[in-house]
Amino acid sequence: MADQSSLGDMLTQLDKGLDDALSRLTEFLRIPSISTDPAHAADVRAAAEWLRAELASLGFDAAVHDTPGHPMVVARSAPGGARPLLFYGHYDVQPVDPLELWDRPPFDPAIEETPQGRVIRGRGASDDKGQLMTFVEAFRAWKAVHGTLPTDLILLFEGEEESGSPSLRPFLQQHADELKASLAVICDTARYADGRPAITTQLRGLVGQEVVIEAADRDLHSGSFGGLAANPIMILSKALAALKDDHGRVTLPGFYDGVADLPPELARDWDALGFDAAEFLGRVGLSSPIGETGRTPLEMVWNRPTAEINGIAGGYAGAGFKTVLPAQARAKVSFRLTGQQDPQRIRDAFQNHIRSFVPADCRVSFHDHGASPASVMDISDPAFGLAKDALTEEWGQEAAFIGAGGSIPIAGDFREILGMDSLLIGFARDDDRIHSPNEKYDVESFAKGARSWARILTALR
Amino acid sequence: MADQSSLGDMLTQLDKGLDDALSRLTEFLRIPSISTDPAHAADVRAAAEWLRAELASLGFDAAVHDTPGHPMVVARSAPGGARPLLFYGHYDVQPVDPLELWDRPPFDPAIEETPQGRVIRGRGASDDKGQLMTFVEAFRAWKAVHGTLPTDLILLFEGEEESGSPSLRPFLQQHADELKASLAVICDTARYADGRPAITTQLRGLVGQEVVIEAADRDLHSGSFGGLAANPIMILSKALAALKDDHGRVTLPGFYDGVADLPPELARDWDALGFDAAEFLGRVGLSSPIGETGRTPLEMVWNRPTAEINGIAGGYAGAGFKTVLPAQARAKVSFRLTGQQDPQRIRDAFQNHIRSFVPADCRVSFHDHGASPASVMDISDPAFGLAKDALTEEWGQEAAFIGAGGSIPIAGDFREILGMDSLLIGFARDDDRIHSPNEKYDVESFAKGARSWARILTALR
Repeated sequence: MADQSSLGDMLTQLDKGLDDALSRLTEFLRIPSISTDPAHAADVRAAAEWLRAELASLGFDAAVHDTPGHPMVVARSAPGGARPLLFYGHYDVQPVDPLELWDRPPFDPAIEETPQGRVIRGRGASDDKGQLMTFVEAFRAWKAVHGTLPTDLILLFEGEEESGSPSLRPFLQQHADELKASLAVICDTARYADGRPAITTQLRGLVGQEVVIEAADRDLHSGSFGGLAANPIMILSKALAALKDDHGRVTLPGFYDGVADLPPELARDWDALGFDAAEFLGRVGLSSPIGETGRTPLEMVWNRPTAEINGIAGGYAGAGFKTVLPAQARAKVSFRLTGQQDPQRIRDAFQNHIRSFVPADCRVSFHDHGASPASVMDISDPAFGLAKDALTEEWGQEAAFIGAGGSIPIAGDFREILGMDSLLIGFARDDDRIHSPNEKYDVESFAKGARSWARILTALR
Repeated sequence: MADQSSLGDMLTQLDKGLDDALSRLTEFLRIPSISTDPAHAADVRAAAEWLRAELASLGFDAAVHDTPGHPMVVARSAPGGARPLLFYGHYDVQPVDPLELWDRPPFDPAIEETPQGRVIRGRGASDDKGQLMTFVEAFRAWKAVHGTLPTDLILLFEGEEESGSPSLRPFLQQHADELKASLAVICDTARYADGRPAITTQLRGLVGQEVVIEAADRDLHSGSFGGLAANPIMILSKALAALKDDHGRVTLPGFYDGVADLPPELARDWDALGFDAAEFLGRVGLSSPIGETGRTPLEMVWNRPTAEINGIAGGYAGAGFKTVLPAQARAKVSFRLTGQQDPQRIRDAFQNHIRSFVPADCRVSFHDHGASPASVMDISDPAFGLAKDALTEEWGQEAAFIGAGGSIPIAGDFREILGMDSLLIGFARDDDRIHSPNEKYDVESFAKGARSWARILTALR
């Protein structure tokens, strides 16, 4: 294990080198690596090459791997018998539309002074080039102080995260032997809302289902047929309404199989966050949690599964009124999963539920949209406690184990294909405007992010 | 009262004059009086003028009245102390798109032989020029036999029925004194499905309501907020689902106030129709009535009120999937009313019902779309029995009092503004393709329609 004096040297090194580090980030941000836009394919590759060169200059064995889509950058440090760690980030960025809402050109980044402190503004500053470079700067400081890189590191930097990662799973499968480590380290998340450092240790899974109910073979006149003929919107409404009881619980048989209450250690961490549901909902014009009776608001979004209707359509919903008794109605429904819930069993239970509402002379069809279980990390792995302590040390406030209501597919992919958990640590802020005009990353996030990795690397090496 | 020998003479006259009558109808059908298309405004007026001239030539005091829209043709016969009757029809027609689906030019009508008998094919043949002309030919025959027109007739022929009758109610209000009669006679409906003659004695009313439920002030990510924040689609689904119980009854308090069971006389007539719900629903791909437990299928559509969801929309319902927790959801709901149900009370009860499902931090708004009570004619007026007997005599099969599931706004307007019931008798067939390409009217409908009016006029004069 690296000693504390070399950690002090690394932190000093990082502080002294901050301006240079920001210059490198600025150079990286100038490359418009928008992965969804085919016109920017060469820029995406240029960003990959820039990264490869940067990593090679530090002594990594770095290569750009072609895929059917955009390239993967893979780099390795020398083996040394330590626990192998896989660091993941992505070097592609979101599109910039609407361009007119930007206060400066999105690919001409600059450091700005703001009332909340210094920020670097530009597309990708926070998501994810700035975060990715916190890794790189920490490795650079390690090299400067130790003369060599930390051993047994694998770096995987993706260029398709913002366009759905179509090449990622095949790449992981094809390169499983080279990429397999004992833990993934992902820097693509935010600090907790109040700015405190956090490690996301559980993510909800997702099952998406589209349902279409068809009744008559054409739209009918609701005068001639109303009260006699099946109305698919009413059938659908009754089926969807019955998905949740009056206590906000999902009614599907077996739905809660595999759902566990929060371990006491996490319950304590979550309570300590002082989550203010009224304030959180107030930001979007609401005030009251509507979830399961007897659950705290944070449990509702992080540790309890739910069913949500994401879209519904049927009949005539435009201007004016049409007295139509429609031929069909459709809805998109998603389930957020926790614990050990089995996506396929939930899909089956949902389909059976809907079918039980559909009369014999009507038809129902389903379209599947994704199924992934929840990701629940094993926090008894010492790396989690060590990383938490390191973050607490760096930020001067207690780091928290937190959950996330949404999915981060890469964490599920690492678990499924490479058999390892992920240490999800990121330094972004809620107000970073990722995916929006005027994206920024706090200079503090960048500087203390790199210092955090220096501490974590020291603890884990 | 006119005697039976003059009726025989009139019927002979109508039979002998059928070819001439068809020629006149053909001439009328050649005028492309499409009321919704401003390019055809002069044609609509030409049709009005054609009718005025035709009626004047028979001895009516006929005039074309300007309105803010298309003209009204109003004609009167001499007073004679008889019960005043107002005859209503419309001389405008539907658009003809898609033109390429017509087998002949829609305004170049012709008599065609078909396996089902002779038809006159062209736009407006059935709806409503052919039906309107059954009146005119009956008056012509009366004049030929009696030397004078029947007394105390008022004719009102409208040119905006196919475009929502915007000028009708103001016109009725402004000319109430001239138009007031003791009964309206409307020829704009069909015979019963099996071809038997029928008088529509009750029409369901309608209340249309749009409801919009708004939750958050923007679309939310269903991962970050799902299970915690209100989902307006779920709120709407629960509220709509609860509109009907498991027996198909509407649950709104007081909803069935004023709804009466069918009088025995009508129940007998309706039973005698031998309505085959499976066959009726089979034509649109369904098989089983889903209405109120313990009600016959004809009751469900003609004599029972209902609630139907005509349209619903919320969130993302396009291709693929978006895990959005939407800001709002909306639905259009209509109630079909029977008996003495009060539209405003039902509107109020619906709004209260919806509000009871909406959490305090969400908002609900309503948009009203029409409110008209049911039209239930007083069949103890002897005119109904006399007309029924006359139809039975003409068609050689028992005429029926029937209901209609939809509204015919003009009947409500006559009741509300002119204080009179309507005798709704029409000779169209279900297969006349009204509003569609290749509209036709059976020559039998036209010939026996005119003969029917000769009989009814004889019975009522």
